[in-house]
Amino acid sequence: MSQPVPPSPEAGDARPSLARTVAPLVASLVADAQALRLRVSRGPRDVRIVDAGIEVDGGLEAGRRIAEICLGGLGRVALVPGGRFSPWDSLVSVSTCDPVLACLGSQYAGWSLAAGDFFALGSGPGRAIAAVETLFGELAYRDRGGEVALVLETSVPPPAEVVDEIAARCAVAPSDITLILTPTSSLAGAVQIVARVLEVALHKAHALHFPLEHIVDGIGSAPVCPPSPDFLTAMGRTNDAVLYGGDVQLFVRGPAEAARDLAQRLPSLASRDYGRPFAEIFAGYDNDFYKVDPLLFSPARVTVSAIDHGVSFTAGGFDPILISRSFGG
Amino acid sequence: MSQPVPPSPEAGDARPSLARTVAPLVASLVADAQALRLRVSRGPRDVRIVDAGIEVDGGLEAGRRIAEICLGGLGRVALVPGGRFSPWDSLVSVSTCDPVLACLGSQYAGWSLAAGDFFALGSGPGRAIAAVETLFGELAYRDRGGEVALVLETSVPPPAEVVDEIAARCAVAPSDITLILTPTSSLAGAVQIVARVLEVALHKAHALHFPLEHIVDGIGSAPVCPPSPDFLTAMGRTNDAVLYGGDVQLFVRGPAEAARDLAQRLPSLASRDYGRPFAEIFAGYDNDFYKVDPLLFSPARVTVSAIDHGVSFTAGGFDPILISRSFGG
Amino acid sequence: MSQPVPPSPEAGDARPSLARTVAPLVASLVADAQALRLRVSRGPRDVRIVDAGIEVDGGLEAGRRIAEICLGGLGRVALVPGGRFSPWDSLVSVSTCDPVLACLGSQYAGWSLAAGDFFALGSGPGRAIAAVETLFGELAYRDRGGEVALVLETSVPPPAEVVDEIAARCAVAPSDITLILTPTSSLAGAVQIVARVLEVALHKAHALHFPLEHIVDGIGSAPVCPPSPDFLTAMGRTNDAVLYGGDVQLFVRGPAEAARDLAQRLPSLASRDYGRPFAEIFAGYDNDFYKVDPLLFSPARVTVSAIDHGVSFTAGGFDPILISRSFGG
Repeated sequence: MSQPVPPSPEAGDARPSLARTVAPLVASLVADAQALRLRVSRGPRDVRIVDAGIEVDGGLEAGRRIAEICLGGLGRVALVPGGRFSPWDSLVSVSTCDPVLACLGSQYAGWSLAAGDFFALGSGPGRAIAAVETLFGELAYRDRGGEVALVLETSVPPPAEVVDEIAARCAVAPSDITLILTPTSSLAGAVQIVARVLEVALHKAHALHFPLEHIVDGIGSAPVCPPSPDFLTAMGRTNDAVLYGGDVQLFVRGPAEAARDLAQRLPSLASRDYGRPFAEIFAGYDNDFYKVDPLLFSPARVTVSAIDHGVSFTAGGFDPILISRSFGG
Repeated sequence: MSQPVPPSPEAGDARPSLARTVAPLVASLVADAQALRLRVSRGPRDVRIVDAGIEVDGGLEAGRRIAEICLGGLGRVALVPGGRFSPWDSLVSVSTCDPVLACLGSQYAGWSLAAGDFFALGSGPGRAIAAVETLFGELAYRDRGGEVALVLETSVPPPAEVVDEIAARCAVAPSDITLILTPTSSLAGAVQIVARVLEVALHKAHALHFPLEHIVDGIGSAPVCPPSPDFLTAMGRTNDAVLYGGDVQLFVRGPAEAARDLAQRLPSLASRDYGRPFAEIFAGYDNDFYKVDPLLFSPARVTVSAIDHGVSFTAGGFDPILISRSFGG
Repeated sequence: MSQPVPPSPEAGDARPSLARTVAPLVASLVADAQALRLRVSRGPRDVRIVDAGIEVDGGLEAGRRIAEICLGGLGRVALVPGGRFSPWDSLVSVSTCDPVLACLGSQYAGWSLAAGDFFALGSGPGRAIAAVETLFGELAYRDRGGEVALVLETSVPPPAEVVDEIAARCAVAPSDITLILTPTSSLAGAVQIVARVLEVALHKAHALHFPLEHIVDGIGSAPVCPPSPDFLTAMGRTNDAVLYGGDVQLFVRGPAEAARDLAQRLPSLASRDYGRPFAEIFAGYDNDFYKVDPLLFSPARVTVSAIDHGVSFTAGGFDPILISRSFGG
């Protein structure tokens, strides 16, 4: 958002094109790749690959910038000394111009990309061009664009079949696709996942059937977790950062009772699986992701402000002991 | 402040033109209007109107950017997870290149604009072009510029008479005026008002006859308050955010005694009206703004550092109970 | 880092040119000099001098931007309301794209510049062009560039001999050199020194023979100290901000034992001189800098995360009483 975005030909109150708002951020990421310790190369079908932590170091700042790309250029992500947890002082702070569009229309990892042994969830603004998910019907949003950017949480580059699928769904040439690869075990991966703290709140609100058009704004933060080379440990920590350390405030329209109900049901505390480090929960379900309560994925503390009534409701809370146990050893 | 400002033709130690430092920020706001959920239109006399919360949602990020415009492009405003109040975690943080010029020369809502039933206080860099307030004589500052930007805390667009008055006072065509409208009840309004935490400290220092030329720097923060559709409640909260939750540090020249005296007199605690939510104080004066102690308007806690002597003085303090009472219900 | 950096002709995984990454930041500083209350002039041999606090006010924001220049354009420096110390609420927060290159290759004040009565330590990206320090051999880094930027912590402009030495060592004309002068007693000086909190951690890690190539990332913060016109008091406070108020997290490769050992030895607590305000320690050594334990210079608290093993180690801690004693009077 640092550069002004050229006004769209269709002015008025139409919604912005994520492809357009994100374009300068992708261009900067590639231009600054050397400084950010990223590697830009061409993969299968001449797709552009940005390695953010497989063969190269990447880092926290690379992750911060990738998180802003994942928000479609509509968000700000900062690393802030927050004092919420000791000694895990750094918080990832997230705010947006438009949370539903930035988080659900772009950042949510909702596009399943699979071929052979390869599987990754695609997130980022390219999702809104493909619009293969039913969510886009509910958002009443579809984007067009000559360039496609996606973030894949993976430690292996995607095969040609996946590139072909993205190209076909987005109606672009593979060479116009940029895939940013952020392994869960990398620093950039940790930052860009924890930066989903606001998105998981919106996604769970949606799962709870709260009307998305009533969500006017939101802001969130969660602690940076130290990475681990062990995938399950790394994944566990990124989840714990949100589930036990994340804070979100939503500003919603509609009845105060609906806001109160949302606040009570939204925090991770409201899930049957709440209370243990995520890696333990996951192991308890034999590492079967689909057995975990989908309503677990939400911030530790949630405040919902009903702006039509001027009242706010807070539920949940931080668990510093669990954060220490998860991050520490 | 993200783009370099072209050097002025008059180099040396002359003061910057606010019209010039703010121009790229106004251009960006308009260019990004769709993404920021603002509506840009033409009003009476072809004046440019930016609606930041009347007919459109606007939001926290729009408010943050409007606050930077209100500071004449000389300040930084950030939304930061601060941990000062629970669960009101988000702080608006304000710093500037030059606090007296940015806050008093631009951000202070000092220009009374009235016609018929319409009344609003104008703030922002256009004030320094009009320079109708005696304050500009004391600041020894007057700006010129072909484009005028003002922020109006209002929920109704201004009539033609107000546009005419601004155009006449600034010697520009109405079509070269941009009026940014931020209702008190909107999210953008809440952010841009709370971002005045440093300005109110400077304004009260001025009211206490502390020499403005002795104020070298300052930095401040205050919590984001949840908006209310009720004007009095919304106004009360924005004031409480500053009066009971705001923190400012000033760096001043001159005698240590003067700094100590300033610190003791500056916080809201020093006012006879201190201690109750602002909405209650206001109601107690029959909603007559001019009966409220003008010295009430100041941050909860103030630290004054006397840089010629290396000593600092702190007075006042936060009132988390009152913040909860004001924001919560 | 706000503008994209043009890609280097040598692509691939070569390291970035600090001269190139810093160039837009130096250009902006000079272009915004009036707004930042800096004075740009020409000194001996037509060298460009940016006065950031000798004859002009400068300020916190000027210091923040100079700190980003000192990091070679590879870092972010923010002023954040942190709540770590009361009432010293503002923290300087530092993160980088590449901490070893940004902090040791650029920000470290390692170049002794002396002539006659003049003495200053040069820091900033110009050091990597001159590469007179043995450290650059260890970093295996040397930069080239037609423009040289250095930050000098001094309250007097340098003589012609110093300009000649810089020009000769960097093989540029004196008119292509920019020297940014930040007195220790100035606000800009205080910010840019405290912004070295991450650098001192890296420098001490190096002194402890921890392999620099194992340091993958880092992030740090320390409180803004109020300046003093007395040089020793001002210098003491900038050191105390780091020694008793600074926090750093490093992410390192290699054995967990090495990370644990580093964490234990890295904080200021591990020094024999720990425990008193720096000005007192210095006076106790008859103001002889070389008698102070060089291993004192490090953050109060350090967390070292061993990313190859997913374990972290924390040692040291903050001393709020000492911070109050140092900053307060």
